[in-house]
Amino acid sequence: MKTKIKISLCQMKVVDDKNRNILKAIEMIYRSAQNNADVILLPEMFNCPYDNSKFCNYAENVETGETIKAIKKAAKELEVCVIAGSIPEASGGKLYNTCVAVDNKGNILGTHRKVHMFDINIPGKIEFKESATLNSGNEITVVDTDICKIGIAICYDVRFPEMFRIMALRGAQIVVIPAAFNMTTGPLHWELLMRTRAVDNQVFIAAVSPARDEKANYVAYGNSMVIDPFARVLGRLEAKEDILFTDIDLSEIDKTRKELPLLKHRREDVYKV
Amino acid sequence: MKTKIKISLCQMKVVDDKNRNILKAIEMIYRSAQNNADVILLPEMFNCPYDNSKFCNYAENVETGETIKAIKKAAKELEVCVIAGSIPEASGGKLYNTCVAVDNKGNILGTHRKVHMFDINIPGKIEFKESATLNSGNEITVVDTDICKIGIAICYDVRFPEMFRIMALRGAQIVVIPAAFNMTTGPLHWELLMRTRAVDNQVFIAAVSPARDEKANYVAYGNSMVIDPFARVLGRLEAKEDILFTDIDLSEIDKTRKELPLLKHRREDVYKV
Repeated sequence: MKTKIKISLCQMKVVDDKNRNILKAIEMIYRSAQNNADVILLPEMFNCPYDNSKFCNYAENVETGETIKAIKKAAKELEVCVIAGSIPEASGGKLYNTCVAVDNKGNILGTHRKVHMFDINIPGKIEFKESATLNSGNEITVVDTDICKIGIAICYDVRFPEMFRIMALRGAQIVVIPAAFNMTTGPLHWELLMRTRAVDNQVFIAAVSPARDEKANYVAYGNSMVIDPFARVLGRLEAKEDILFTDIDLSEIDKTRKELPLLKHRREDVYKV
Repeated sequence: MKTKIKISLCQMKVVDDKNRNILKAIEMIYRSAQNNADVILLPEMFNCPYDNSKFCNYAENVETGETIKAIKKAAKELEVCVIAGSIPEASGGKLYNTCVAVDNKGNILGTHRKVHMFDINIPGKIEFKESATLNSGNEITVVDTDICKIGIAICYDVRFPEMFRIMALRGAQIVVIPAAFNMTTGPLHWELLMRTRAVDNQVFIAAVSPARDEKANYVAYGNSMVIDPFARVLGRLEAKEDILFTDIDLSEIDKTRKELPLLKHRREDVYKV
């Protein structure tokens, strides 16, 4: 199995038009494949504005809906693995914030429903109540691609270190975080949390945001980035729409864990997750 | 109970002379009390160079040894609470890296023995094997002062998020981290880890290092700092010997937890610590 791979983070500008969002995602997947990306990542809610009033109209079944159908078709044609950020999923009369992982044959490898609902109220700064429309998932997700094991966490999930510890213990080598931080928490916490989750668990972190749109109801922070297992930032974007290509060497994980054996030094006799 | 308190971080230069280290610690405690500090913090191994070849000779019993006796006397006289960084503790034929918390009447409130042994080997950068001489503690420590609840973690303990989660769930409002990071991990991870432990658990973090001594076998990073529950750095020192005074308002903890209810949003049905 090769250890040197190229990942692509598609920081796309999401608009209030589902078809245009799907076309943009497919176009960025094509450009990524042309640049020899092995794994292609899309942001949170890549087919829909991050807005409680929109989720219901944009939602679809992840097996039969048009968004994931288009992703599967592209993944198969281009023979690439796509971690499809997230979309509003409709299932059993409920809505979820769901990531679909598609392998290089166009098959669904797994899905992750956001576990932690983003309900925040910082007066004068940011207020959002995701649980007003969405339901939470109940599973921690690690998918097994033919390249490596990939853990998936969506946005607010990143604030809960327990999830990342469990993903690492289950063998995740890269944790992909489709996420839309905002202009309050982004500057203070985005890089901080991404880098700490990487170094605590000695995994690669790939955090992919929508591009910043100052006119949107919810202004995403952007700054998609890739972090290595020692917390070094390997690449990052700014606010605007762009693709970040990063070469990573998965053997860095074992090297880091040998030099600084954090997972081995955990005291399971004192605490357990 | 007052919520606005002043804490003092004594970033002392540790030398290879126990008596001089004790005198320096007492002098800094006096200066801190003169500046109306409520809680005074000392660094890791404040009475002894951070060096495996020194721990045995400098070690003492924490109840009867001269170092803690001197701290207790100063705490009582000045009516201040002192979290006495750490010293090499001799107990039952074994050595530990131990913090002693002393209240404003000069009584020992509790002790914390470093739980995680710092065994690291990054070729060409830093090698240290604490477990060659020291033994690990087996307890997570939160002491109840008459001002607030204080959790204690020593240096390498900071790399294990489980400990901080448990301290927060047990009511810690400030977590004090006597710590000697080095010139490899310091620039990369010191501020990063301190700020993340603060914001993940929505507590104050006070990290106190010895001053940097370029001539020592082990060169401490310095950069003692205080972080608020939203990950903002309230104050920090540079490399040299100095005292950092920081006013903190403990009511910020409840405010932050109300605005961003992280501890409430934990999914104990999905994972447990």
